[in-house]
Amino acid sequence: MKHPGFWKMLTVAVFMALLGCLQAQEHQGHVSIILLGATGDLAKKYLWQGLFQLYLDEAGKGHSFSFHGSALTTTEKGQEFMAKVLESLSCPKDVAPPRCAELKDQFQQLSQYRHLKTSEDYLALNKDIEARVQREGLWEAGRIFYFSVPPFAYADIARNINSSCRPGPGAWLRVVLEKPFGHDLLSAQQLATELGSFFQEEEMYRVDHYLGKQAVAQILPFRDQNRKFLDGLWNRHYVERVEIIMKETVDAEGRTSFYEKYGVIRDVLQNHLTEILTLVAMELPHNVSSWEAVLQHKLQAFQALRGLQKGSAVLGQYQAYSEQVRRELQKPDSFHSLTPTFAGILAHMDNLRWEGVPFILMSGKALDERVGYVRILFKNGAYCAQSEKHWVTDQSQCLPRQIIFYIGHGELGSPAVLVSRNLFRPSLPSKSWKEVEGQPGLRLFGRPLSDYYVYSPVREQDAYSILISHIFHRRKGSFITTENLLASWVFWTPLLDSLVHEVPRIYPGGAENGHLLDFEFSGNQLSFSQQQLEQLVPGPGSVPKPSDFQVLRAKYRESPLISAWPEELIAKLANDIEATAVQAVRRFGKFHLALSGGSSPIDLFQQLAMGHYGFPWAHTHLWLVDERCVPLWDPESNFQGLQAHLLQHVRVPYYNIHPMPVHLHQRLCAEEDQGAQIYAEEISALVTNSSFDLVLLGMGPDGHTASLFPQSPTGLDGEQLVVLTKSPFRPYDRMSLSLPLINRARKVAVLVMGRMKREITTLVSRVGYEPKKWPISGVLPASGQLVWYMDYEAFLG
Amino acid sequence: MKHPGFWKMLTVAVFMALLGCLQAQEHQGHVSIILLGATGDLAKKYLWQGLFQLYLDEAGKGHSFSFHGSALTTTEKGQEFMAKVLESLSCPKDVAPPRCAELKDQFQQLSQYRHLKTSEDYLALNKDIEARVQREGLWEAGRIFYFSVPPFAYADIARNINSSCRPGPGAWLRVVLEKPFGHDLLSAQQLATELGSFFQEEEMYRVDHYLGKQAVAQILPFRDQNRKFLDGLWNRHYVERVEIIMKETVDAEGRTSFYEKYGVIRDVLQNHLTEILTLVAMELPHNVSSWEAVLQHKLQAFQALRGLQKGSAVLGQYQAYSEQVRRELQKPDSFHSLTPTFAGILAHMDNLRWEGVPFILMSGKALDERVGYVRILFKNGAYCAQSEKHWVTDQSQCLPRQIIFYIGHGELGSPAVLVSRNLFRPSLPSKSWKEVEGQPGLRLFGRPLSDYYVYSPVREQDAYSILISHIFHRRKGSFITTENLLASWVFWTPLLDSLVHEVPRIYPGGAENGHLLDFEFSGNQLSFSQQQLEQLVPGPGSVPKPSDFQVLRAKYRESPLISAWPEELIAKLANDIEATAVQAVRRFGKFHLALSGGSSPIDLFQQLAMGHYGFPWAHTHLWLVDERCVPLWDPESNFQGLQAHLLQHVRVPYYNIHPMPVHLHQRLCAEEDQGAQIYAEEISALVTNSSFDLVLLGMGPDGHTASLFPQSPTGLDGEQLVVLTKSPFRPYDRMSLSLPLINRARKVAVLVMGRMKREITTLVSRVGYEPKKWPISGVLPASGQLVWYMDYEAFLG
Repeated sequence: MKHPGFWKMLTVAVFMALLGCLQAQEHQGHVSIILLGATGDLAKKYLWQGLFQLYLDEAGKGHSFSFHGSALTTTEKGQEFMAKVLESLSCPKDVAPPRCAELKDQFQQLSQYRHLKTSEDYLALNKDIEARVQREGLWEAGRIFYFSVPPFAYADIARNINSSCRPGPGAWLRVVLEKPFGHDLLSAQQLATELGSFFQEEEMYRVDHYLGKQAVAQILPFRDQNRKFLDGLWNRHYVERVEIIMKETVDAEGRTSFYEKYGVIRDVLQNHLTEILTLVAMELPHNVSSWEAVLQHKLQAFQALRGLQKGSAVLGQYQAYSEQVRRELQKPDSFHSLTPTFAGILAHMDNLRWEGVPFILMSGKALDERVGYVRILFKNGAYCAQSEKHWVTDQSQCLPRQIIFYIGHGELGSPAVLVSRNLFRPSLPSKSWKEVEGQPGLRLFGRPLSDYYVYSPVREQDAYSILISHIFHRRKGSFITTENLLASWVFWTPLLDSLVHEVPRIYPGGAENGHLLDFEFSGNQLSFSQQQLEQLVPGPGSVPKPSDFQVLRAKYRESPLISAWPEELIAKLANDIEATAVQAVRRFGKFHLALSGGSSPIDLFQQLAMGHYGFPWAHTHLWLVDERCVPLWDPESNFQGLQAHLLQHVRVPYYNIHPMPVHLHQRLCAEEDQGAQIYAEEISALVTNSSFDLVLLGMGPDGHTASLFPQSPTGLDGEQLVVLTKSPFRPYDRMSLSLPLINRARKVAVLVMGRMKREITTLVSRVGYEPKKWPISGVLPASGQLVWYMDYEAFLG
Repeated sequence: MKHPGFWKMLTVAVFMALLGCLQAQEHQGHVSIILLGATGDLAKKYLWQGLFQLYLDEAGKGHSFSFHGSALTTTEKGQEFMAKVLESLSCPKDVAPPRCAELKDQFQQLSQYRHLKTSEDYLALNKDIEARVQREGLWEAGRIFYFSVPPFAYADIARNINSSCRPGPGAWLRVVLEKPFGHDLLSAQQLATELGSFFQEEEMYRVDHYLGKQAVAQILPFRDQNRKFLDGLWNRHYVERVEIIMKETVDAEGRTSFYEKYGVIRDVLQNHLTEILTLVAMELPHNVSSWEAVLQHKLQAFQALRGLQKGSAVLGQYQAYSEQVRRELQKPDSFHSLTPTFAGILAHMDNLRWEGVPFILMSGKALDERVGYVRILFKNGAYCAQSEKHWVTDQSQCLPRQIIFYIGHGELGSPAVLVSRNLFRPSLPSKSWKEVEGQPGLRLFGRPLSDYYVYSPVREQDAYSILISHIFHRRKGSFITTENLLASWVFWTPLLDSLVHEVPRIYPGGAENGHLLDFEFSGNQLSFSQQQLEQLVPGPGSVPKPSDFQVLRAKYRESPLISAWPEELIAKLANDIEATAVQAVRRFGKFHLALSGGSSPIDLFQQLAMGHYGFPWAHTHLWLVDERCVPLWDPESNFQGLQAHLLQHVRVPYYNIHPMPVHLHQRLCAEEDQGAQIYAEEISALVTNSSFDLVLLGMGPDGHTASLFPQSPTGLDGEQLVVLTKSPFRPYDRMSLSLPLINRARKVAVLVMGRMKREITTLVSRVGYEPKKWPISGVLPASGQLVWYMDYEAFLG
């Protein structure tokens, strides 16, 4: 009779064998993970812990693992370092200490340091992996190379991986890249092209660790799971604004060698905040778990972003920054940095969903608090019939309604999703998010915390752990594709270029900033709310402002001349046009306005569209003074400028718009199509006496006006109202009102702007009536009025 | 030597004589004021006091006065009444009691009662005035007749004044009228015509006593004196909303005989609140003290008001109202009134200044407080970089910014003008308005009173006193002209008509109303925020709602049929069109859509414009299926419907819009202009294979589709893509796509809605291919898909 212990032991042994067998069956192959830059800060702080977490989550689910830390350090030092890091790894709270020690031990067994520099090193790594796989009777699933190294090292590593360390057929390769991904569009393109020569797009995982933050990662699932409520609300009719904010209290001390080259826009806005913006703004795919659909929709969101202009940004720099740069980078005392450490940006989406909704992106160092959040504030579309004393917080639609993805830190201290109780009770995945009670007395975003449904993650997880898991599971939706990256640089680079010489506002730092960094927006323009009291960094010499000057009235070629700085000149001209329009409509019921193309009128169009509420657009007919022989939809078409800068913003009835018929029968300005005659007929039919109420002209540096060029045989006299002409510049073929028609107008305004016009202005002031040499000299309305509008640069030089 | 007293006396006597002489010189003549209805409530409460105030202000400034109270009461009773009223008059606070007694005595001397009924009475009055003027050696300046009588009495009085009591040449006549000025547009026109047959427009002063309220009267002067700040702010870019509110705590008890016929909209909104609306919204005249300019701009504001629809209003009725009506008007127990005692209205101005800004008008009885105000709330266009804990109230642009004209009562208890301190420090006329400190602890409009600059009148004045003074001084800007009155009724009458059978929401009254009357707006639609729990007044029987039914899928003429209630049918069709559009743009880069005119597509257009954010409008070409031979701007043009309901709301590029060329060479559908051929060419050139991606058709009760009518010889077959046709209905001449062209489309959708289509639907379901009899039966896309969309009424009858 066997000892009872025998049976017990046997049972255990059989069970273990069975378990081993089952595990072996489940093995889906071996995964090697190579962490390049294994001794760097990021690796130490997050990546090893993330890899350990991956091991904890995935070991036993089928795959086997090996982890390779690598760097340029000697093997000895590297091993020493790794041992230290691996010792410091921590387990989740729910793992008991003895079990944790066991797991750490297993992980340490699977991890080894190796020196990786030459192609031989990579070849050796390749062999070692293959040998290991074979030795252990496994097959290879794939390899992950995590580049935690500076970008200048990318090319070498990539070349070595590609040539010497690709896994065999059937196994995948994934390379993980960390920002910065270039410095502007060009450098990003170069980097992308270089990487593209070594790796397939699907092999690359560009990390933006914000996409691993729990509140950020929840944006799309939240939008998906609450479609019932959000479908009607997530658009310009309901959203007042979106704020995407990352505030820091720390400054750049110790990091200025990096920061001085990048600044806050490249460091935070171009990547983190822009990614969040696309998550909020994108059209929601039917299936949000399809990363292909997510990436495609994200790209469409980029395409809808309206281009930023200098006026779309406000910049700041904390006061101590320049001194820190001088010290750390050994700059002379006279050095002042222009690198912004604070930026506020106003972005707009040009699509039906978001048109007109301000997206505010803001980040800065040395601010009053550390916090990150996305806030969707809804419009207040309610009127409460009772006095506010009687409002019940979670029923009153008159109190603010908002949804906040609270990324972390700040007064809450942890990630959260907040939804105003007067909005709806949201649905969140109950496995990973739980409803919590806020601290009493806490106020957030203008309301007590009790006004919100508040949800927090069941388990707070580090972004890198989450992203490493996504890499392992090939969830590409949480990473930056090349297209996505370039789209973001396409968006940001023009702004960055335009801001190169911009002097940031200096702020003291911390709570002392007061209202100094508050900013306001109107239309596309952003500006600080407070006037700056003193300039602490010497800016460009004090340039006289337009308001320092008066509008000058004089005579030019015996007609009235109005001269001013550009801004005031445009304002004056816009006022005069409006007055003419109002008068014409009062007298005749309509206003016939003929407009020139070119760049000067664009400011005028914008001024007319934005500032002139009394303009009788519904009774205005718009005609073209001249047109290039290109289709109307060609970017070179004068009509395009008119459409983009004026017609989109005002309500001129379709049939009051009269583009020149340069494109008939699918041909451009063909004589036999008689476009000029057709336009002339249209004018004769609609404009009494063919006498426009106002014709707006420009003057070229060669003295041309409309599309009437010097030495041109047509349009200077004769019966023809509209003519085909030739320009000395591309596109050569043009259609133009003739001088005789222009001179029938009740009023002709000639707008001349810029230093380039100085010479012709002087010349034309002296010549007589010589339209063949200088067509502009032929502008002499028979019974109408001629007024010259010139800015100081054109008039005074 | 004379006694020194002599000299003194002589000096005094000379001085007195001189004074008398000067006064006589200053006399500008005699003014007679006749108060008709002198014994009524209004007269007793306000008018006699107003006349006394006029006497106090004006006597001694040149004119002499006589006051005539008149009514239908006997002379004895009238005199008794008047004596009582005159005794109760009060002087301003700064007049000492003895002086006050003296002044009252003078006024009583000048005032007399007379019975006025027959033309003899008026003749007698006329003689008496003439005699008095002559007797006292004066000349007559003018006469004021104040009609404080019910409207049914107007005509008689007016006739008598006109025929028997007009002053002689050189003296003016002014008649003062009190509301109601009609009950709707028709009655107001009749009344106006009637009065117009007796009086000149300039002789009539229609009183809206709100225009005499100090805060209301301050709106235009405030806008004028603060132009510097307001010029940039007073528009849609900065104003979030305007609230014009009059809340009452009293109910209609005792007045139901009047109220039951009028209701809150006629009682308060059509007059008081509308007048205020125009003062806020009008373009500010350069000279606000020119009443001609003010009245003209006011009228323009009326013209810009967008028409109200049923959905623009929410109605309520306090619970006790019906019982009060039953009691006071002896109605049976079964009687339930539909008269609203509460109304919220959403108005919009269709002009560039105010487009999109909601104007909320609200008034009601039995509410929680008595208060009247106009509140202009500005958009919050600021981002504050500091945590809100650090915000300084009067510097933070992130706190609400508003201007309030506080008409009276409420928590402030007096008229006031409030301006947020973070907005600007306003300028008010210092003679009549003073800055005041608010009660500490008081909150108004979401902020402590200390957040505002608060101004109050130096001297509170009653509206009637102010208006009587304006009448005397011929300041017509504070009165309602006939044009103004009719414009207001033009605005309100369609809404009132549409609400006749609307069941108001019942509310308990007072603070108990809770959130029951809160309402929300979106687009043009207004609705109560809370679902109504129970219907306290029996409304129309419970009609099945669209959502109670499913979309039905079946076959019709061997093609797919989709049937549903109208709302869901339109939603389904819009979804299908969007899906087709997205697919076409993905495949071909563009989407060619041909649309029909008529009323059914209008709902579709609105649905597409408002709800479909993913629609690729920028790549969509819009074509017309058919057109009436009228200019494009004619209201009958199909293109007009397309423009008004779709093009205005989406961004289709100008050159992607293809109206039919029915109007060439200033002629309509002339054969020789070859419009049909031109359109066919355009289609051939732009649409691959002349195969539209989608053609939307309708079906007429006679089986016509597009503009292809039964027995029409053209367009049913042959080569022609576009044809000129004849309709049996006006306008007879049409242009239409031909059946062969329609049948080349990739997809054809036929939308059929309404009970009127039931018969033809049944008929067509049974016929074969007989396009000459029923053109719709010829719709058979060669290789495309045909889908029928019919609502239940058209399909099931």
